[in-house]
Amino acid sequence: MAQTSGRRRGGGGAARRAERTAVSIETARYIERNIPNFEILTEEALQIIEQNAETVLEEIGVNFVDNPAALERWREAGAEVEGERVRIPRGLARQLCATAPARFTQHTRNPERNVEIGGKSLVLAPVYGPPFVRDAAGGRRYAVMEDFRNFVRLGYMSKYLHHSGGTVCEPTDVPVNKRHLDMLHAHMTLSDKPFMGSVTEPSRAQDSVEMCDILFGRDFVRDHAVMTSLINVNSPLTFDSTMMGAMEVYAAAGQACIVSPFIVGGAMAPVSVAGTLTQVLAEVLAGIAYNQMIRPGAPAIFGCFVTSIDMNSGAPTFGTPEASQILYGAGQLALRLNLPFRSGGALCGSKLPDAQAGYESANTLNASLLGGVNFMLHACGWLEGGLVASYEKFVMDADQLGILHKMAQGVDISENGQAMDAIREVGPGGHYLGCAHTQANFKDAFWRTDLFDYKPFETWDEEGARDTQTLASARVAKLLSDYRQPPLDPAITEALQVFVRQKKESMPDAFV
Amino acid sequence: MAQTSGRRRGGGGAARRAERTAVSIETARYIERNIPNFEILTEEALQIIEQNAETVLEEIGVNFVDNPAALERWREAGAEVEGERVRIPRGLARQLCATAPARFTQHTRNPERNVEIGGKSLVLAPVYGPPFVRDAAGGRRYAVMEDFRNFVRLGYMSKYLHHSGGTVCEPTDVPVNKRHLDMLHAHMTLSDKPFMGSVTEPSRAQDSVEMCDILFGRDFVRDHAVMTSLINVNSPLTFDSTMMGAMEVYAAAGQACIVSPFIVGGAMAPVSVAGTLTQVLAEVLAGIAYNQMIRPGAPAIFGCFVTSIDMNSGAPTFGTPEASQILYGAGQLALRLNLPFRSGGALCGSKLPDAQAGYESANTLNASLLGGVNFMLHACGWLEGGLVASYEKFVMDADQLGILHKMAQGVDISENGQAMDAIREVGPGGHYLGCAHTQANFKDAFWRTDLFDYKPFETWDEEGARDTQTLASARVAKLLSDYRQPPLDPAITEALQVFVRQKKESMPDAFV
Repeated sequence: MAQTSGRRRGGGGAARRAERTAVSIETARYIERNIPNFEILTEEALQIIEQNAETVLEEIGVNFVDNPAALERWREAGAEVEGERVRIPRGLARQLCATAPARFTQHTRNPERNVEIGGKSLVLAPVYGPPFVRDAAGGRRYAVMEDFRNFVRLGYMSKYLHHSGGTVCEPTDVPVNKRHLDMLHAHMTLSDKPFMGSVTEPSRAQDSVEMCDILFGRDFVRDHAVMTSLINVNSPLTFDSTMMGAMEVYAAAGQACIVSPFIVGGAMAPVSVAGTLTQVLAEVLAGIAYNQMIRPGAPAIFGCFVTSIDMNSGAPTFGTPEASQILYGAGQLALRLNLPFRSGGALCGSKLPDAQAGYESANTLNASLLGGVNFMLHACGWLEGGLVASYEKFVMDADQLGILHKMAQGVDISENGQAMDAIREVGPGGHYLGCAHTQANFKDAFWRTDLFDYKPFETWDEEGARDTQTLASARVAKLLSDYRQPPLDPAITEALQVFVRQKKESMPDAFV
Repeated sequence: MAQTSGRRRGGGGAARRAERTAVSIETARYIERNIPNFEILTEEALQIIEQNAETVLEEIGVNFVDNPAALERWREAGAEVEGERVRIPRGLARQLCATAPARFTQHTRNPERNVEIGGKSLVLAPVYGPPFVRDAAGGRRYAVMEDFRNFVRLGYMSKYLHHSGGTVCEPTDVPVNKRHLDMLHAHMTLSDKPFMGSVTEPSRAQDSVEMCDILFGRDFVRDHAVMTSLINVNSPLTFDSTMMGAMEVYAAAGQACIVSPFIVGGAMAPVSVAGTLTQVLAEVLAGIAYNQMIRPGAPAIFGCFVTSIDMNSGAPTFGTPEASQILYGAGQLALRLNLPFRSGGALCGSKLPDAQAGYESANTLNASLLGGVNFMLHACGWLEGGLVASYEKFVMDADQLGILHKMAQGVDISENGQAMDAIREVGPGGHYLGCAHTQANFKDAFWRTDLFDYKPFETWDEEGARDTQTLASARVAKLLSDYRQPPLDPAITEALQVFVRQKKESMPDAFV
């Protein structure tokens, strides 16, 4: 656990005052797994899928849409380009991917909160993208900028969340072409955890880089990853110019990109697990190969967001066995490519933070841990298939993330862990509550919720028989009330404000 | 899927009428895993724990309480007996366990619903033991016999439940010394799925065997396992005469026993995972060794019921990382002993079937599947740390068990599963909904809930914005309303009634 040190980059009375009044916020270090991954695919199955993905790239190819420069780059790299179709000779994409690092550091303004992405690590980031928010008091409504700020504050206050995320909700009260400025400003000033950049236009990616230049210093940004941004593939097999344009900006700036097929199984990929994995692998290979053409060595993450579909209604479904199987398989494929892996999250289809939400989310969280995910977007707050950012579910999920931390530590097999002295001391028919080993170890022995109910029935009943949502509402209120902004050099604060104001003034509002 | 065939053992108009009016009930076959287990312990860790367990048996020993015959058996087998303490030479218990089968069939009166326990199988049975029941309409209350019957009916109607279980709740309106008769009668007549015998007194175990003699025929029972019963160890390291007495009856009759340490971690075992696993292994080795002394080759299951503890309140906690780690480790130890493994369940501490219940239950269900559990008691209906059998949670959990069936199938890597034709047909930018591969495969492609909400928000909202508990209440009512008793030979029905009546008349009521 790293405590907020209150270290400042600059001085100033305001910063010092903020530091003195700050509530001490505990943030767990990103997870380093000390347990193996679960391997659902055999070596033979992996080889078949890898061979098939190469066949897809070679014979079917991928489209790079509205992007003549990309086509030119592919042609120079040795691909066969016909119209917007790019057919990639067997082995070429994999070879191009080889320059991407297996693991990288994403830096943040509080170095104690830097995260390592790749290898055995697991970095947890909140929900991304919902246009709606929900809480018990206010119900479901369009998200606004103050909601966005609240979710950044909750993320900052959440012990088991390592990353502030990106579009924690869509601030629909801010013009579409100016939102990214307010969103990045919120991440930079309301939290000191790492964050993501804008991807909705190449120019907004450029703005993200420039704001980081202000926050970190231009020299620092040139040589260090300070953003990890989400580049969705337009599955099947299509790379659009908006996402590719944003990726080009980030890769050129040495910033990290997640290249992530976004697939509702049965609609954007075949209805089979092996077929979907084949397509995912082909798409990631093509996307990261292109990323590495822009700047060899730029950090890139193998992404895989896959849901299944309800064939009755066409609705995407979450926490299902097929989605878990794909997650496990994709994790194995990413590891063989020696690339960091993004997948999972506290995904659910439920409209409410109820039992369905709990089951479905836990199904995916468990698969994410054992499947070797290195970067988990949507780790908390996701509701209603990602249409809604839920206040209550944010803190419910965030609490459950503590379980992943403890599971990942594995089993302590030291002499103390073996506890033979305790078994000897207590003997048949005794009890362990007071024995020396228990006294020495009980504080860290068992993970404990900060939210769920462990009380005796009578106490719980007297206190109002509250369900999880009710407990969560209270926790949200407490966290937001305890929140204090982490100190930031006033000169930087001022420069960020000026940048945002000037950018906003430079263009008319646009709402599409 | 095996459909109820309505096959009868006898004739009679009543049975034929029942058959004609029976609702067709689908029951999934027990699970055969086509996926590997998750192995949290290294070979080195496993060897350390196995060595330590032998040390516990040799140096500390176990107590067999109020059971001189057991002490004599142990002495004859080569153990050192001192008072009630039995010290077992290194290797002896393991050697005695070797005669227990790695896998056995539990027979039931509908042969299509026989279950295989051991190897790669997973058999699912409902909650066991709660003195209370809860439903949304009636709240929490003491369980009565009609609740018991309802849970047996729900189990019979549940597609993914292979086993009718045992004490699905405690029928507190029936005298303690006569309950077992009504409970067994309910399992035998209201369901045709396999069931468990009584263990609360050796004489009640004997009654269970005699009722099975009536149901199956004495000759059949002699040579076939028709009951799997739960023998809890009085952890730490103590075997009481009630449980051992019941086990002696069952083993002698060739009936299956689960030898199961029941451990609240930190109270009945050390606060460490490795220490707890050491004690669990020592207890199971001693218990099954004793079982095999009674009748070599009697079916016996390596049981492990472990919860963690909230060190603030002393409350047992569920769905926690330590409990999952112990489950995974115990599964590895059982496999190395070549014994069937019982653990897991839809365990939770929540008072309500809410989000907490969902998260915690899913955590344990997932660990149970990947940890190699062969027999899962408490697979549905468990609430409030096992104090409560919940109607709504029964059908929620039972629905989620479908996920385990699909996950266990693993990934289809056949040519059809690879779906290369579909990827070719659709190509970049297309969609898969109408392609030939989807049309041929969509029906079985994705697991689908029978309970959860997948509807569009507007529809869901118009229909009353129902949460999972509300949907589950409706499903409970529907299943109980659709329920039709499976036909049974009237002669057997009559003989069972006579047995129960005569037994009840033979003794005064006892309520302790």
